[in-house]
Amino acid sequence: MLEIDADRLRDTFADYSAIGATDRGGLHRLALSDEDKAVRDRFRDDVEALGLAVRVDELGNMFARRDGTDPDAAPVLVGSHLDSQPSGGRYDGQLGVLCALETLRALDDAGVETRRPVEIVNWTNEEGARFEHAMLGSGVFTDVVSTEEALAITDDDGVSVGEALERIGYAGDAPCEAHDVHAHLELHIEQGPTLEEHGTSIGIVEGVYGMSWLGVTIDGEADHAGPTPMHTRTDALDAATEAIGKIQKLPMRLSEDAVSTVGRISVEPDAINVIPTRATFTADVRSYDDDVVERGVDAIRFEVDAACERIGASSEVDEIWRIPHTEFSESVCSTVETVAAELDVSAERIVSGAGHDAKYLSDIAETAMIFVPSEDGKTHNEDEFTPWEDVVRGAAVFANTTLRLSSEQPDKIR
Amino acid sequence: MLEIDADRLRDTFADYSAIGATDRGGLHRLALSDEDKAVRDRFRDDVEALGLAVRVDELGNMFARRDGTDPDAAPVLVGSHLDSQPSGGRYDGQLGVLCALETLRALDDAGVETRRPVEIVNWTNEEGARFEHAMLGSGVFTDVVSTEEALAITDDDGVSVGEALERIGYAGDAPCEAHDVHAHLELHIEQGPTLEEHGTSIGIVEGVYGMSWLGVTIDGEADHAGPTPMHTRTDALDAATEAIGKIQKLPMRLSEDAVSTVGRISVEPDAINVIPTRATFTADVRSYDDDVVERGVDAIRFEVDAACERIGASSEVDEIWRIPHTEFSESVCSTVETVAAELDVSAERIVSGAGHDAKYLSDIAETAMIFVPSEDGKTHNEDEFTPWEDVVRGAAVFANTTLRLSSEQPDKIR
Repeated sequence: MLEIDADRLRDTFADYSAIGATDRGGLHRLALSDEDKAVRDRFRDDVEALGLAVRVDELGNMFARRDGTDPDAAPVLVGSHLDSQPSGGRYDGQLGVLCALETLRALDDAGVETRRPVEIVNWTNEEGARFEHAMLGSGVFTDVVSTEEALAITDDDGVSVGEALERIGYAGDAPCEAHDVHAHLELHIEQGPTLEEHGTSIGIVEGVYGMSWLGVTIDGEADHAGPTPMHTRTDALDAATEAIGKIQKLPMRLSEDAVSTVGRISVEPDAINVIPTRATFTADVRSYDDDVVERGVDAIRFEVDAACERIGASSEVDEIWRIPHTEFSESVCSTVETVAAELDVSAERIVSGAGHDAKYLSDIAETAMIFVPSEDGKTHNEDEFTPWEDVVRGAAVFANTTLRLSSEQPDKIR
Repeated sequence: MLEIDADRLRDTFADYSAIGATDRGGLHRLALSDEDKAVRDRFRDDVEALGLAVRVDELGNMFARRDGTDPDAAPVLVGSHLDSQPSGGRYDGQLGVLCALETLRALDDAGVETRRPVEIVNWTNEEGARFEHAMLGSGVFTDVVSTEEALAITDDDGVSVGEALERIGYAGDAPCEAHDVHAHLELHIEQGPTLEEHGTSIGIVEGVYGMSWLGVTIDGEADHAGPTPMHTRTDALDAATEAIGKIQKLPMRLSEDAVSTVGRISVEPDAINVIPTRATFTADVRSYDDDVVERGVDAIRFEVDAACERIGASSEVDEIWRIPHTEFSESVCSTVETVAAELDVSAERIVSGAGHDAKYLSDIAETAMIFVPSEDGKTHNEDEFTPWEDVVRGAAVFANTTLRLSSEQPDKIR
C-alpha cells in the first residue's frame, strides 16, 4: 500500500490554514480575494516543487499533471477547492486539495510510476459566497455555465469574476473546458452528522441529493394592528406561518432521507403595528429520490394554497431551481470500498445532501467522493472540526484509491 | 341646533385633498414636507380669514382661538392633524381638522357667542411616518416627550424635526406646553370595520386600548440545509413559526376584544440553503382591559419559551413599549351621545384600537372622540373611504357638541 506522511500532511494543513486565518480558528478566504491569491501562490509553489507545471484556465481553475507511463491514457483527476465561506472552517475544500497534494507527494516518495497521469485541481469559487454561483469553476469546466456568463458575475461591490481574476493574476490563457478524464475523486468533509453518529471513519459517497428551490409570495391586506378585529384580517404572515409550519414538518411524510428548509423570510410593510400585506419566503426540499422531491414540491404548493384559501389571501409559488439526484460511479465507489477494507478503515455508503464540484465532474468522468466526519455536523462556520485520525485514514484511502484508479485499463470502467 | 354647511365642508375637503394628492386618490403629505407646508399655509389662511390669529409653537403645532364671552374661561380645544402616511388616505386626520374648521365657520355664520373660547389645533407629526414617533406634537404638548428629544428626532435622511420645522417656516416661538383646556374633542375615522358592520353613523369613543409591543429573538444553530438531517437541527425559524402561530391565535383565548399581530420578522443568515440561526420578530397585543394585555404578554413569553424548549433553541423577549388603556371623559361622551340623539344620528359607544392625539390630550383635559365609519376598515392606504352622509352627520354632531361644551360652567365637569 502507498504510505502517506501524516506529519507532513498535518504541517501543510497548518500552513495553509494560516492563510486567511480568523481569530476564532476558521478561514476568511473568499474566492479571488487577496487571501485566495496567497493560498493559490502557495499551492503553485508546492506543486512546482514536485517538478510539475501548473496550468491555469480562463476561470482560474489550477491544474497540474504528474505523467504516467502510458502517454495515451486519460488522467485520474483529484482535488477540491481552496476558497472559503466568509466565516468558514479550515476543512471545507482545503482538506480535499491537501489530501490530493499529499497523494502526489506520497507517489513521489515511493517512486511509484502510475500507468495513467494523476492530475491535481483547485477549482475556482466553489462556495459561491463572494460570487453568487456555487461550484462555478467546475460548472464552466463541465459546460453547465458558459465562460462569458461566469466571468461577468459580479460581487456586492460590482467587481466581476473576470476583473477579480485579472487583479490577482489568475486569469489563465487556457480555455475552461473539459478534457478527457478517466476518473475523478474528491475528498471532502461530510458537513452532516451521520458518520460521527455511526462512528464511521469515512463515507463512500454514492451520489448527491436532488433538490428544488421554491420562492413563495403570499399577498394579504395591510391593516392597522389596533382597530382591525381578528376576524376581518387577511394577514399574509398568518398564511405564511401556517404553510411554513407544514413545510418544516414535510419530511416526516415524504421519506426517511428528505429534508425541507425555509431559509429566507420577509414581510411588507414590515412595521410593528401594521398587519403584513405580503410575506415572501423560500423553501429548499431535497432527497436522493427525485420522486420524493417532486412530491415535496407538490405538497408545498398544496400547503401554501390551503393556508391562503383559509383566509382569502392569494399566493404565487415559483420554482427557482430544480436538479435531479446524481449517481456517482459504482466502479469508483467499490474501489474506495475495497481500499478501505484493505486498510481496515471503517467505511459506509452515504449520499451527499450538498452539492460539490464532483457533482458536475460526474457529467464527464467516472466520479466518486470520500467523506470524512464533521463533528456535530458543523460546517460553513469557524467551528468545523474533523478528528485528525479520521483525516489520516481518509487521506490514506484517498491516496491508495487514486493509485488504484491510475493503474486501471481503459476498459475497466465505462 | 348649530347648522353646518355641508357643501362648504365638501369643497374645503376637496381643496385640502388636492395638496399632496396621489394618482390613486390618496395623500402623500409627510410631516414637515413641502406638501405639509402647503396645507399648513392653506390652513393658516382659512383660519385668518375668520379673523383669528394663528399661534405656532416650537413643535409646529398650530393653534387659533375664537374668544368667548367669559375672559377667564378655559377653551374647548378641537382639531386633529394634517400630516399623512406615505401612501395615506384623505380622511385620516384631515377630516378632524376640517370638521373643527367648519365648526368655527358655522359659529360665525350663526353669530353665536360662546361662553368659553373655542380653539382649533393642527398637531405636528401625528403619523410618525417620516419622524418615527407617532403623536409627537401632542406628546410634547402633554409632556410625554421633551421638546429637546422631539426636535432631535431625525428622518431617514438624517434631517431632524427641528431642521425640518425651520426649513418650512413652522418653528414657532411659543413654548410647546399644555395650557389650561376645559375639554378636548377630536373627530377621526374609525380605521376599523365596526361602525360599518353595525350600520352606525358615529362612534362615541370612550377610550383607547392598552397595548404592549414585544421584540422576540430566537437563537438556534446555522447548518447547511442539505446534509443536516431534520432530527439534528436547531432551526430558529422552526421555533419562531411555532410561537408565531400561537401568537396569531392568542386573542381567541384572551378576550372578545383582544388583537395580536406579528408585523415584523427576519432571519439570519437569510440564505435559501442555510438553516436560520436567528429569527427576530415583533408582537403587538392590545385590549381595552390592561389585565388582558398582561395575560397576552405572559402567554407570548410562554409560547416562545415552549417553542424554544422543544428544539433546544434559546430566546429573549423584550418589552419595547407598554401603555395602559385610556378612559376618556364620561361627561364629554354623554354630551356627544345627547347631541347625536337630538340630531337623530345613529351612534354607539366604541373604544379605539389605535392611538390618537386625543389619547395624550386626555392627560390634561376632559376628552372624547367622535369616529365616523371607515369602509371595510381600510386605513393608512389610498383607498380610505367614509360615506359623505356619515361625514356630514359626524360634523354636525361634532359642531353641536363643541357648542355645548363651550357653554359649560366651570363646575360642570371635573
